[in-house]
Amino acid sequence: MSEEAGRTTRRFLTPPVRQVHDFLRARMESQHMKVSVDAVGNLRGLWNAENATGKRLILGSHIDTVPDAGAFDGVLGVVLALELVESARRLQLPMTLEVIAFSEEEGVRFSFPFIGSRAVAGRLDPAMLDFKDADGVSIGDAIEAFGINPGVNADAVADHDAIGFVEFHIEQGPVLEAEELSVAAVGSIVGQTRLDLRFVGHANHAGTTPMHLRNDAMAGAAEWIAKVEPLARRTEGLVATVGKVEVQPNAGNVIPGVVEASLDVRHVHDSVRRTEVDALLEAADAISIRRGLKIESTMKMDEVSVPMDERLTAFMTDAMVAAGFPPKLIASGAGHDAMIMAGRMPAAMLFLRSPGGISHHPDETVRVEDVEAALKVGERFLERLAGELG
Amino acid sequence: MSEEAGRTTRRFLTPPVRQVHDFLRARMESQHMKVSVDAVGNLRGLWNAENATGKRLILGSHIDTVPDAGAFDGVLGVVLALELVESARRLQLPMTLEVIAFSEEEGVRFSFPFIGSRAVAGRLDPAMLDFKDADGVSIGDAIEAFGINPGVNADAVADHDAIGFVEFHIEQGPVLEAEELSVAAVGSIVGQTRLDLRFVGHANHAGTTPMHLRNDAMAGAAEWIAKVEPLARRTEGLVATVGKVEVQPNAGNVIPGVVEASLDVRHVHDSVRRTEVDALLEAADAISIRRGLKIESTMKMDEVSVPMDERLTAFMTDAMVAAGFPPKLIASGAGHDAMIMAGRMPAAMLFLRSPGGISHHPDETVRVEDVEAALKVGERFLERLAGELG
Repeated sequence: MSEEAGRTTRRFLTPPVRQVHDFLRARMESQHMKVSVDAVGNLRGLWNAENATGKRLILGSHIDTVPDAGAFDGVLGVVLALELVESARRLQLPMTLEVIAFSEEEGVRFSFPFIGSRAVAGRLDPAMLDFKDADGVSIGDAIEAFGINPGVNADAVADHDAIGFVEFHIEQGPVLEAEELSVAAVGSIVGQTRLDLRFVGHANHAGTTPMHLRNDAMAGAAEWIAKVEPLARRTEGLVATVGKVEVQPNAGNVIPGVVEASLDVRHVHDSVRRTEVDALLEAADAISIRRGLKIESTMKMDEVSVPMDERLTAFMTDAMVAAGFPPKLIASGAGHDAMIMAGRMPAAMLFLRSPGGISHHPDETVRVEDVEAALKVGERFLERLAGELG
Repeated sequence: MSEEAGRTTRRFLTPPVRQVHDFLRARMESQHMKVSVDAVGNLRGLWNAENATGKRLILGSHIDTVPDAGAFDGVLGVVLALELVESARRLQLPMTLEVIAFSEEEGVRFSFPFIGSRAVAGRLDPAMLDFKDADGVSIGDAIEAFGINPGVNADAVADHDAIGFVEFHIEQGPVLEAEELSVAAVGSIVGQTRLDLRFVGHANHAGTTPMHLRNDAMAGAAEWIAKVEPLARRTEGLVATVGKVEVQPNAGNVIPGVVEASLDVRHVHDSVRRTEVDALLEAADAISIRRGLKIESTMKMDEVSVPMDERLTAFMTDAMVAAGFPPKLIASGAGHDAMIMAGRMPAAMLFLRSPGGISHHPDETVRVEDVEAALKVGERFLERLAGELG
């Protein structure tokens, strides 16, 4: 179910999304769930136990992908949620469960992520429907082209009876594998700063310009980039990355005149993150002044850390212990739908180990034993929540 | 006289070269020189004093340019040579002077430099005529399309009566300006190593991969690049440059998996250059081993230093003193036609100050007073040589 033969690529409301809907709808209907598609293309299945209390727990994740993706990022959380509906039925839990397959999380098609969960959380401004993809198609156009009638499904926002959101997701990092753990509850989703730095020197002939008469932008940028890793290592839990470097004119026999470098800094504590960003910018300033370079920095993103709900997360770690696993808490270094949903209702997440830490790649996978672990923890979590609701 | 409106771009035997030929031919004929175009499109003008001794001195430089070039790189040396023919006539020197406007030096059109001087020096292998440009046109095709009959002009190689080659050229670097000098004689053209280094780590998510579980190719490459400048500064006259850096996948939120970096090292002493290249490669190895990166290096160029002729260069520095200038000797950090001609006959060069060290750019210029200085030195040089020949 992909836009491209031989690769998994499934952007917001492209044709293969309909195949995914058809597949999941059949599964939901076989589970006697009430199925609908909301105003932004989220596929939603509602299950009411006969003895339901009227309080609704939402479970889910996203079904879109990055280009040439793996098979588990997002969609595993939807399939696990449907499996937990079966568990709730089997355990005769007095619950109302809504499973949402969010239509968009990755931000690929419109350079704008979380369309699905923003709509459910009531954070999708109608103006955003005018954002256009590379072909000039707006989000609104794409929704209409998918055959959704905005008049019928205008209100994607979660009902007020929703008491929480729980998302199962692969870790997409190497921490659980390094610690030989199947699953971990997410304590917080880290805050994130993204900056572009621009080092400006003088392009010159690499053969005719003596070393002492140079203002080499790459030599300055390299001195700075080499400081980023040691600075980040001083602070527990901090990650700082220079992922993108562009050199001008980028010819072997010309001294670089301009270097643009990205900086991505994340930490669960916003004050720690901002202090470290300031330290890195001061280091860049000092290097540039000493070398006679100009330095400019442009803030591209400054998003605060989002803590998961303490009570729901405590239920999750209790469930982990009850299922026979250590109550490991981890920070999520990436954004997830749960981060958006947390703005509307209590939210919790469970991570599954990512073999090799690999994600956003065809080699992305998950171990069967870890899926079993997640299901066991999910069942204990639902039991515990049902007990609280009762 | 350019391929592009508003920019000076004049590649090997493109239409504007004919305009340059027409202009120079008219000038040569007005000086009663015998004009010809040889088998690779070099325009050649021969002047014989009435009392000539039969020994021929060749003067010249190239008339092709890089894209969006300045006005003086190459062609100034041709115009100065023609002016010195006037000087020789006025001074009644008993000389034979050949002025060559080399058709190609920059290597832009065929990624292959020095076509003009290679032919005159007898170093143009006929197989090289099959080299093709980006449009699939070979060097041989380009020569025929220019209207040159290979049957008539097969032999571009310098006659055996040639006793030397002298080239006037802008410095294309900042040394003379920094030392407030008009001109300098070239002692040697530096030897040059060009390498590509490839640092291979593991691409991973910038948010979910802790610092201690990374193999960041850019962090390793930056640590190495930051060492290049300090290492090069330890050795007088050495230049070392990382001009080109390519990162994969080059996204702000992905830890770089592969970094390719160029290295360009030049020095007048080949043993010094090779020792420094080895030291830089050892530094890259040590960094890569410590960081768990793989490192590969590919040699792209390893050209030896070419000394100018001692006797002709001594005549030149004597001429500088006679004309009232300090006898400054400088190494050329870039290749020139004189480097190729030195394989066939004694060669010497005089550099003119480059304001701002700027070249290969529309802002490239030269001061009138420095052109006057070069002419004075050239006249004293011709007088000295004529005296020796007499």
